[in-house]
Amino acid sequence: MKTLTVIKIGGNIIDQADDLDIFLNKFVNIDGPKILIHGGGVMASEMASKLGIETLMHNGRRITDLETLKLVSMVYAGWINKSIIAKLQKIGCNSIGLSGADGDCVPAVKRSPVPVDFGYVGDVDPDQINTGLLISMLGRGITPVFCAITHDRNGSILNTNADTMASSIAIAMSKEYHTELIYCFEKKGVLSNPDDPESVIPLITKDSYEALKGAKVIRDGMIPKMDNAFYAIDNGVSEVFIKHASNLGNDTGTVLK
Amino acid sequence: MKTLTVIKIGGNIIDQADDLDIFLNKFVNIDGPKILIHGGGVMASEMASKLGIETLMHNGRRITDLETLKLVSMVYAGWINKSIIAKLQKIGCNSIGLSGADGDCVPAVKRSPVPVDFGYVGDVDPDQINTGLLISMLGRGITPVFCAITHDRNGSILNTNADTMASSIAIAMSKEYHTELIYCFEKKGVLSNPDDPESVIPLITKDSYEALKGAKVIRDGMIPKMDNAFYAIDNGVSEVFIKHASNLGNDTGTVLK
Repeated sequence: MKTLTVIKIGGNIIDQADDLDIFLNKFVNIDGPKILIHGGGVMASEMASKLGIETLMHNGRRITDLETLKLVSMVYAGWINKSIIAKLQKIGCNSIGLSGADGDCVPAVKRSPVPVDFGYVGDVDPDQINTGLLISMLGRGITPVFCAITHDRNGSILNTNADTMASSIAIAMSKEYHTELIYCFEKKGVLSNPDDPESVIPLITKDSYEALKGAKVIRDGMIPKMDNAFYAIDNGVSEVFIKHASNLGNDTGTVLK
Repeated sequence: MKTLTVIKIGGNIIDQADDLDIFLNKFVNIDGPKILIHGGGVMASEMASKLGIETLMHNGRRITDLETLKLVSMVYAGWINKSIIAKLQKIGCNSIGLSGADGDCVPAVKRSPVPVDFGYVGDVDPDQINTGLLISMLGRGITPVFCAITHDRNGSILNTNADTMASSIAIAMSKEYHTELIYCFEKKGVLSNPDDPESVIPLITKDSYEALKGAKVIRDGMIPKMDNAFYAIDNGVSEVFIKHASNLGNDTGTVLK
C-alpha cells in the first residue's frame, strides 16, 4: 500500500507570510502523494472585524450565520486557498484548491441546532467522501488543497472545522493508502506545561491521553484536536503527528498511536 | 469532433439570486460537455465599498492594487464560485470551481504598466492553457467552473477580464472540440438602439461589425466584448452567441460568425 500524507495547517501559521513560505517549502519536499487542508480562523476574524460582522464563538468553535458563511467562503476558499495554490505552483507543486462542494468531494450534514445552534456548520461523515476524484488527481501528480468549506448537497455551502475536515479526509483515504495525518500549528507539539514551549510530550497513546485529560494537562482547545486525532486512528489512519509547522519533515513533535 | 459549449455569465446576473437560479437550470440542461466562466464585478464593487477600498476603473476595466486583488480573489474565487458550485451540485451537475492557478490551468502574464498601470492584472495566451486537465475533468463528467482569476507562475494570482478568460479557454479547447462560445448577460443581444431592449441584431459578421463600429451603433463596453468574440472566431471557435442569460438554450440573441 502506498503512503499518503494528509497535512492540516492552522490559521496562525497561514497569517504569517514568512512562516507560510517555510511551511510550504517543507510541504513540497514530502515524498509521495499528499493532501493539504488549511484553516484560516485568524484571518476570518480580522476580515469580520473590518466588515463589522460580530465573531461569535462557543467553546472555541465559530457560530456561522449567513453573513459569516459568506465571509468564511471569501477568506478560506478565496484569498487563502488561491494564495496557497499560486505559491505552490511557483515552487513546483501542481495543486488544485478545493472546497468540499467541488466535485462533491466532501458533503456534510448541517449540524442540529440543539443543544447549540452553530448556524451554517457542517459535520462530515468520512464514508460520504468522494475519494475517487482525489485518487484520480493524486494519480495525475496533482496535490489537492482543501479549505474547510463543505456543502449540504441542497445548494448551500457549510462551514466545517478544519481539524475535523483533515481527519475525515484521512480516514476516507485510509482505505486506499497507508495514511499519515499531521496537524501543523504554532506549537512544537502537545505540551505537558502550556507555559513551557519545549515541554513536548513525544508519545501519547489512548491510555495516556485519558490520564493526561484527567490530570488537566490536556484541556480546552486541545481536546477536540486530540479527539479528532484518536478518532482517525480508530478508523484506519496509521499515525497522527502534532507538531510545529516549521518542523514538518523532521521527527520532532508529538506522535499519537 | 464532439461539441463543447463554453459559457460566460456576467456579474449583473449573478448578483440576482432568482436570475442566477434560472440561468443555472438552463445551463445544466445543455447537452454535452460544457465549461462555465463567471464574472462578479458588481459584487466586487459592493464589497470594496463595504471595506472602504476605492474602485478605480480605466475604460471600464478595473485597476487592481494589492488590496483589490485580495478583494476579487475573495469575491470571485470564494463566495461567488463556491455558491455556484453548491447550487450546481444540488441540481445534478457535478462541477469543480477553478481559478487559473488551480492545476496551472490558465497561466497569465502581468500586463505591462505602460501605457496604463492596471496593477495585478493578467493577460492570457490561449496556447499556454492546460487543456489536458480540463479534458480529463470533462471526460469524468465534471463541469469546470472558472472565476476570472489567473496566476503568474511566480507565486501571485492575477485579476483577469472574464470575457477574455472565456474566449481564451474557448480558443484553447477548440483544438479538441467543436467549440461554441456564449456570452450571457442582462440584455437580449447586441442592440441596434441601446434605448430599445428589443432591437437585437440577429447576425453580425466581421464586415458588418466594422460598419456598426464606424456608425457608433456598437461602442463603449461592447467593443472589447465583440473584439474578444471575433478574436475567438479567428482562432478556432466555431460560433459566438451574445444573449440574455434567461435565453440560454433557445435561439434568440446575436450570432457572430
